[in-house]
Amino acid sequence: MRAHPLPSSFDSASVVPVFAYGAALGEWVSVLGEEHVIDDSAVLSGAGAATFHTTASVKAILRPGTREEVQEVVRIANRHRVPIYPFSSGKNWGYGSRAPVQTGVLVDLGRLNRIVDFDEDLAYVTVEPGVTQRQLYEFLQARQSRLWMDATGASPDCSIIGNTLERGFGHTPMGDHCANACGLEVVLPTGEIIETGFSRFGGATTAAIGRWGVGPSLDGLFSQSSLGIVTRMSLWLMPAPEAFQAFFFSCKDPAGLPAIIDSLRPLRMNGTLRSISHIGNDYKVVSAAGQYPWDDMRHETPLGREAMARVRKKLGIGTWNGSGGLYGTRAQVREARRQVRRALKGKVDRLQFVDDRLLALMARFATPFRLLTGWDIKRTLKVIAPVYNLLKGVPTSETMASTYWRKKTPPSARPDPDRDGCGLLWCSPVVPNTGAHVAAVTQLASDVLLTNGFEPQISLSLATERTVICVITISYDRAVPGQDEQALACYRVLTEQLLARGYPPYRLNVGSMEYLARDAQEYASALRALKKTLDPRGILAPGRYDAAPTSAAEPSASAFLKAGTG
Amino acid sequence: MRAHPLPSSFDSASVVPVFAYGAALGEWVSVLGEEHVIDDSAVLSGAGAATFHTTASVKAILRPGTREEVQEVVRIANRHRVPIYPFSSGKNWGYGSRAPVQTGVLVDLGRLNRIVDFDEDLAYVTVEPGVTQRQLYEFLQARQSRLWMDATGASPDCSIIGNTLERGFGHTPMGDHCANACGLEVVLPTGEIIETGFSRFGGATTAAIGRWGVGPSLDGLFSQSSLGIVTRMSLWLMPAPEAFQAFFFSCKDPAGLPAIIDSLRPLRMNGTLRSISHIGNDYKVVSAAGQYPWDDMRHETPLGREAMARVRKKLGIGTWNGSGGLYGTRAQVREARRQVRRALKGKVDRLQFVDDRLLALMARFATPFRLLTGWDIKRTLKVIAPVYNLLKGVPTSETMASTYWRKKTPPSARPDPDRDGCGLLWCSPVVPNTGAHVAAVTQLASDVLLTNGFEPQISLSLATERTVICVITISYDRAVPGQDEQALACYRVLTEQLLARGYPPYRLNVGSMEYLARDAQEYASALRALKKTLDPRGILAPGRYDAAPTSAAEPSASAFLKAGTG
Repeated sequence: MRAHPLPSSFDSASVVPVFAYGAALGEWVSVLGEEHVIDDSAVLSGAGAATFHTTASVKAILRPGTREEVQEVVRIANRHRVPIYPFSSGKNWGYGSRAPVQTGVLVDLGRLNRIVDFDEDLAYVTVEPGVTQRQLYEFLQARQSRLWMDATGASPDCSIIGNTLERGFGHTPMGDHCANACGLEVVLPTGEIIETGFSRFGGATTAAIGRWGVGPSLDGLFSQSSLGIVTRMSLWLMPAPEAFQAFFFSCKDPAGLPAIIDSLRPLRMNGTLRSISHIGNDYKVVSAAGQYPWDDMRHETPLGREAMARVRKKLGIGTWNGSGGLYGTRAQVREARRQVRRALKGKVDRLQFVDDRLLALMARFATPFRLLTGWDIKRTLKVIAPVYNLLKGVPTSETMASTYWRKKTPPSARPDPDRDGCGLLWCSPVVPNTGAHVAAVTQLASDVLLTNGFEPQISLSLATERTVICVITISYDRAVPGQDEQALACYRVLTEQLLARGYPPYRLNVGSMEYLARDAQEYASALRALKKTLDPRGILAPGRYDAAPTSAAEPSASAFLKAGTG
Repeated sequence: MRAHPLPSSFDSASVVPVFAYGAALGEWVSVLGEEHVIDDSAVLSGAGAATFHTTASVKAILRPGTREEVQEVVRIANRHRVPIYPFSSGKNWGYGSRAPVQTGVLVDLGRLNRIVDFDEDLAYVTVEPGVTQRQLYEFLQARQSRLWMDATGASPDCSIIGNTLERGFGHTPMGDHCANACGLEVVLPTGEIIETGFSRFGGATTAAIGRWGVGPSLDGLFSQSSLGIVTRMSLWLMPAPEAFQAFFFSCKDPAGLPAIIDSLRPLRMNGTLRSISHIGNDYKVVSAAGQYPWDDMRHETPLGREAMARVRKKLGIGTWNGSGGLYGTRAQVREARRQVRRALKGKVDRLQFVDDRLLALMARFATPFRLLTGWDIKRTLKVIAPVYNLLKGVPTSETMASTYWRKKTPPSARPDPDRDGCGLLWCSPVVPNTGAHVAAVTQLASDVLLTNGFEPQISLSLATERTVICVITISYDRAVPGQDEQALACYRVLTEQLLARGYPPYRLNVGSMEYLARDAQEYASALRALKKTLDPRGILAPGRYDAAPTSAAEPSASAFLKAGTG
């Protein structure tokens, strides 16, 4: 921080009383040092930018380096009633990136980036919030560990704790991140530290592996939450299987999806498919392979159903395109392959099993193969390689390019959708794992998006035996006037319709927290009571998954800030 | 209830002010009707009896029949500040049965016994707290469902919700009950009702299947808890596998355990063993097969190591005796069998795979088989049949007889350890799933129990990939003077030593709640703050997993009751 803190810009939502947090900034500087309190206006404005329009602005960024500094940051925020919004890596793409819900100060936890414990036999690792997917991957490689991590597609720079607490998911048998983590160290909004589960017992040998502990389990309170800052977490890894195969399938018939879902569910239920299979529609696959076909479409949007049918044919992809992994001994994988083949028989147009050897072979003989079969393997490889890697828990940066779908310039070498004005809103209902439900939701989403001028990019993740997480992407170019408003309006219409039909989302964006406890007054009250207890001054990420009324009835830090303006 | 409430006995711990809850009883009668407010002294004294010495007494039993009546019961308790202790079926054997932590009123939820939802495709069922294992089993049978439930050994009359909330576990792939349940309906201590996860959204199609919901997950707050009364829960079932086999093994060498654990862990980790395998020591198996050998031991206790070696030889059992289940397609089970055989080769003395056909055959040809091989199949069958059933999710009442181990009269036809003075205390540390840790804990437990005059009955449940729940049984005869004290003293010594070595328990008994947050002051404060928020008058099961100081520093219902005595 240079000299005196002077906010560079005022947002329309709240005029921040400089005098109210000036003192707080001074105290933060004395604790963290000037270099770790950032008030450069360009940096702040960049930090507040998401992939859609947000209203709150960032007044400073604090970069504590230790748990104790996090505690001090929180205590100072309490004394001055200044809202703070912690983030780990800020790769909360499509849901708000680093942007706060209300105007306040960001707390960047990236400097807490130690891997503090690791056990090869018990297959776990204990990390701080700054530890990224890449860091863990490289750590395991360097140790020649035989353990695999799970990876999400968000980018190698994505924080593991951040993604887990947002309930992100990946592709391996450890893909339900929240279900494979425990032993949280949490700085409460008042500055005390607690450890959850068995980790609260000094020297507990089960701190990193026993999920429930004894007594009420508090872990759930701190995911998708503003009730504490998680400064340490243990997560579980999987031993590399003796054998691994990926499978890829495609189905041309738009009406073919329900039969596929109903065929895969029994395999998910009986343990044959132990990981999270993903199915993407044509729009999803096309956006992964390149940008909007501006020329072919004569610069008109959206890409309608007929146009997509042409693209589909040209690229040789299906309306529905799936992937999954088979993990186990050689015999287990052989049997799983038999099961998958039998289940999908007659329901898909192409089913391909791929392993390391075949992948190498395909790359080598792509051209002659195409001459023989007509199948353009190179294009296929480009699309499947990142997925194949993710199925093995290898982080990839390939997925980021798809956020540039509607841009008229190509993705930069180091893609950054926040910086580059990529419009991206994710609406992500959870859907029962049956063909009928999945068909209903995908149909609804397609209709709403096309009607509102967007391509319905849809991915279906068979997240658990019983549920499918349907991620509907609203992709646009923020540089086009009016698109921000149009996208948000579309998001709202879609969310409302999904709620009305019984499909609430698994995750919300920073601008849509009002859906948290829709029509559940007593639940909202209970959540607010818990918030009030743990965060009496309402300084920790107010508005974030806390069921606070939109027009604050109860006094909170942000209300105080507003009241404080002269 | 007859006439005016007059407590029949006073316990030493607290003198209950009759006038304070007389009014409450009157109101409860007006809400529930006389037949559902029980104050018969014999019934109350029976309801307060556990399988070990408890200090609190039961002043009345309330039997609400609906969720609304539960709410009324709670509101009345609040108005009069009377502590209420809900139970579902009260089969919390070894941890306190129905007995309250402090003197108060029991709330029997047994009349809420509806199965309110069921889905064959998505494999779930939604139940009320009175629904027992037997009831669900018969429900599935009657529907000719192809779904299997998980069952715990506690008895067919055990409540499913009760067991799940106490974090009980079973033997199938759905054996971690808490991990396979969601969508709680909870009457809060102030009488409001909330629904957790997606069930708070009206008409959510994912209410019974989506574990996390959106926003902070509250489910964990209500297990091993005094923060709410769960009146509805959904739990997941598994499709009956195409093939099933059980396996049983035994190992004579007392030092053979670590190698077995280290051989099974990789199979648990790689998905070959998808369910909870159990290993019992010799004492555990012997107590399951019959009562203490009083005559052989000339009425002396305990059964020392040398004596046990003789019994072991005579019965042909191992020092360590294990069981597990293989579930899947025929090919998957065949491969799992191959894996188990290879893993245990050279580490066990006997390994037997059993399926329905073999079991029938064994029963038929037991006698000739014994002549040929010397193996007493009938005795084996008696021990393995209940385990075999549990591995298929079939509840059994066979396990109850073992609680009569030290009694001098045989188990009654309808065993009831509370009524019959069976001494039973369970100390249940969670242990990392490695040979070294498991060996350390079993050695420690054996030493402590034998030194204190008890047989170390030990079971090891490979509860998750990374943890083993070690249940150490202190079994005795409550009718023998001094044994109650001796058993509790032994329990305390054992728990202290386990804590000191880093092995906290997964579950506590009603008299040992002080271990909940040992040496974790900030954690205890946070828990107390949550309790105070949700239960401001401290009327719901005070002292139960709530980290309340033993000498109540904060005002609570029980403190009020004590203060209220003239």
